[in-house]
Amino acid sequence: MAQSWLDIPAGSDFSLINIPFGIVTYSGTSTPRAAVAIGDQVLDLVVFSEFDGFDGLADIQPYLHLFDEPTLNSFAALGRPLHKKVRAYLHDVFVKDGPFRERLQDNAQLRSASLVPLASVQTHLPMHIGDYTDFYVGKHHAFNVGVLFRGPANALQPNYTHLPVGYHGRASSVVVSGTPVRRPWGQILDTDKKTPIYHPSKRLDIELELGAFVCKPNYLGSPIPIGKAEDHLFGYVLLNDWSARDIQAWEYVPLGPFNAKNFASTISAWVVLADALEPFRTDGIQNTSELQPYLKPADSSVKPMFDINLEVDLKPKGVAASSVVSRSNGRHLLWSFPQMLAHHTVGGCPLNVGDLLGSGTISGPDDGTQGSLLEITGGGSKTVNVGGVERKFLEDGDEVVLRGWCEADGQRLGFGECRGQILAAWANGVAEE
Amino acid sequence: MAQSWLDIPAGSDFSLINIPFGIVTYSGTSTPRAAVAIGDQVLDLVVFSEFDGFDGLADIQPYLHLFDEPTLNSFAALGRPLHKKVRAYLHDVFVKDGPFRERLQDNAQLRSASLVPLASVQTHLPMHIGDYTDFYVGKHHAFNVGVLFRGPANALQPNYTHLPVGYHGRASSVVVSGTPVRRPWGQILDTDKKTPIYHPSKRLDIELELGAFVCKPNYLGSPIPIGKAEDHLFGYVLLNDWSARDIQAWEYVPLGPFNAKNFASTISAWVVLADALEPFRTDGIQNTSELQPYLKPADSSVKPMFDINLEVDLKPKGVAASSVVSRSNGRHLLWSFPQMLAHHTVGGCPLNVGDLLGSGTISGPDDGTQGSLLEITGGGSKTVNVGGVERKFLEDGDEVVLRGWCEADGQRLGFGECRGQILAAWANGVAEE
Repeated sequence: MAQSWLDIPAGSDFSLINIPFGIVTYSGTSTPRAAVAIGDQVLDLVVFSEFDGFDGLADIQPYLHLFDEPTLNSFAALGRPLHKKVRAYLHDVFVKDGPFRERLQDNAQLRSASLVPLASVQTHLPMHIGDYTDFYVGKHHAFNVGVLFRGPANALQPNYTHLPVGYHGRASSVVVSGTPVRRPWGQILDTDKKTPIYHPSKRLDIELELGAFVCKPNYLGSPIPIGKAEDHLFGYVLLNDWSARDIQAWEYVPLGPFNAKNFASTISAWVVLADALEPFRTDGIQNTSELQPYLKPADSSVKPMFDINLEVDLKPKGVAASSVVSRSNGRHLLWSFPQMLAHHTVGGCPLNVGDLLGSGTISGPDDGTQGSLLEITGGGSKTVNVGGVERKFLEDGDEVVLRGWCEADGQRLGFGECRGQILAAWANGVAEE
Repeated sequence: MAQSWLDIPAGSDFSLINIPFGIVTYSGTSTPRAAVAIGDQVLDLVVFSEFDGFDGLADIQPYLHLFDEPTLNSFAALGRPLHKKVRAYLHDVFVKDGPFRERLQDNAQLRSASLVPLASVQTHLPMHIGDYTDFYVGKHHAFNVGVLFRGPANALQPNYTHLPVGYHGRASSVVVSGTPVRRPWGQILDTDKKTPIYHPSKRLDIELELGAFVCKPNYLGSPIPIGKAEDHLFGYVLLNDWSARDIQAWEYVPLGPFNAKNFASTISAWVVLADALEPFRTDGIQNTSELQPYLKPADSSVKPMFDINLEVDLKPKGVAASSVVSRSNGRHLLWSFPQMLAHHTVGGCPLNVGDLLGSGTISGPDDGTQGSLLEITGGGSKTVNVGGVERKFLEDGDEVVLRGWCEADGQRLGFGECRGQILAAWANGVAEE
């Protein structure tokens, strides 16, 4: 197992096998810039570039200025072959006594100038998101929710196993981990279940998802063939698709969720590159329906999902410690991201660099593995004990952290946290200035 | 009635009472830039600015460089009071023997440099659209479509008169008038109505809508009070929300339309400023439901809708002339754009400058006034005669033009055309390189 000359704490999300990319500022920077996370530090790629850190990698030389941008979009647009080279190069810079040891390991001045404690950086939304699409391909979740609404016999709609169901989300309200989430006002049904009232949501929920960023555009009218879809996937983040269940139940017919979802969607700050996840491929949920040709995997020997441990941590207001309320896994999906891309574009919809695709809530098959409180509490019909207090849905002051990680040979590839705390609704629905 | 020194053809959409803004290129320009349309000419605002055309308007002086951008977003962000001044100033430049006659009327050199024939310019998408939201507030349309799906008793969902129903659309596939529209492939049900097949849409349709652009942002967690919503509205365009009805019918449960709508949405090229429409206010469809406080108009003496004549022109392939297949009006809406904005943001969803809101299909109450072929042909159960040929839905080569205009004192305020022609689906679903 390769070791770094850096002191990477045991259990760090950001071991040598990860090297995720993000956007940071910190004391001394005037503008947001690209960085990678390694152990409990980040490497400022602007400073690293300025001091010839990339001199061992000719291919990136024409593009070094792209690290000095406030999003990763331009770097993403360079394409997967170059992402792979940059990540491999940085691995070789970080590995102990590696081929590029003179860049950092043996260069105290540059170490001091370019490495910054993770705890002292502010992370920002890593990508400019043109459009955000949320799928619904966590089959257990779709089934669980369907049972609550329509009973087990009709839980899944007839289309469910034939296409990756998805809808257009709201790009402008995607926020980075740590951003507080204000409880939304909206229309909900009164206790008589018939009369709408104007009220803060009483059934505020989480959704445990994976997100994927697009790094290669397709053009209007030009579908992405499934065999080329991997080329369009930059990397992955955790996604909490906060949901106001009572607003959703009243508004969603006939055109789908709207205000129930568009008040905030939180993503983790570090983009785990698609290449980093390759060693963790695994099988997903078996689909027994005959697939349409555009959805058939081009190479059936490539396993479609990733074996990512997923966890929902909830710290109720006033409780000292957080508790894990769900343990799930990235394998619990019916459709892969390449299938989502192929379906999204089959009619010619253009996807741009920076577009975000969500998987939909990832629930496992068993109790304790459901990715939303709606499922955990049976639609709010029972409470769950969280560190000594009872919860059906989120209360003001509650803090939620999603975590995700893969493990191999004792090293951990993690996503960093996807955190958000619930703020009380505005009094009377009017924002304070 | 004010007259221009310019020769504005009778019946021109772009009379003195209009002065809409757009983005153009033409022979001799290297970059897209802002322009206004007047009669059968456009005024290049970059050239006009360079040669001191705006010297009579001090307020715009610090911002003249914003006309030299490829979208109107920065100009829009200056806010409605300044839009109003610029439009009024340009009116006074164009009016015969007006206060600023020395700028153009008496300046042959600048006339020649800055005025370009409308027919010789290429128009571009006028705004960078961050997010696109499509509402569904054309009540006659919602009812007509509901009858087809659920019968007259349950045609409208219970929420319909309580909130402006809407969904998130796809910003990346909004295109400017004139862009061809490729017939989408997708999943549709076979003639057995049960088995999905992979096929080009057989039920390609139009939707006659109005679109509104946002010119002032609100921030995450900060609703727009209805009394301030007008400040956020930059201007209006025509919108054809092309729809694949067979793809929609199969995919839309439970999360709403997706690929049925995201292959293209066409807008007219010229943004009619909100101020220009003020004289054409009129009543909309009466809503007898008690409105929640955040949706109650701040000033009930202000009529909520605009008296805009709307028309759908269809030219079937191989037929020499187009025929009007629908005549509707902008008054046939249940909710106003300020109500849509207030509802969209009630939970804190942030809207950005350039965001586009669609009204939903605007159908009138009578035969001949429906804004979609789905309604005109009773869900495809009968044909409509268009210039001697029969149509249920759009055929390859068919060309659709939406038009919209107001009239006062013999002058016309029009939107220009919103045009698109249907291209045949790709053979086998694969785009030609």
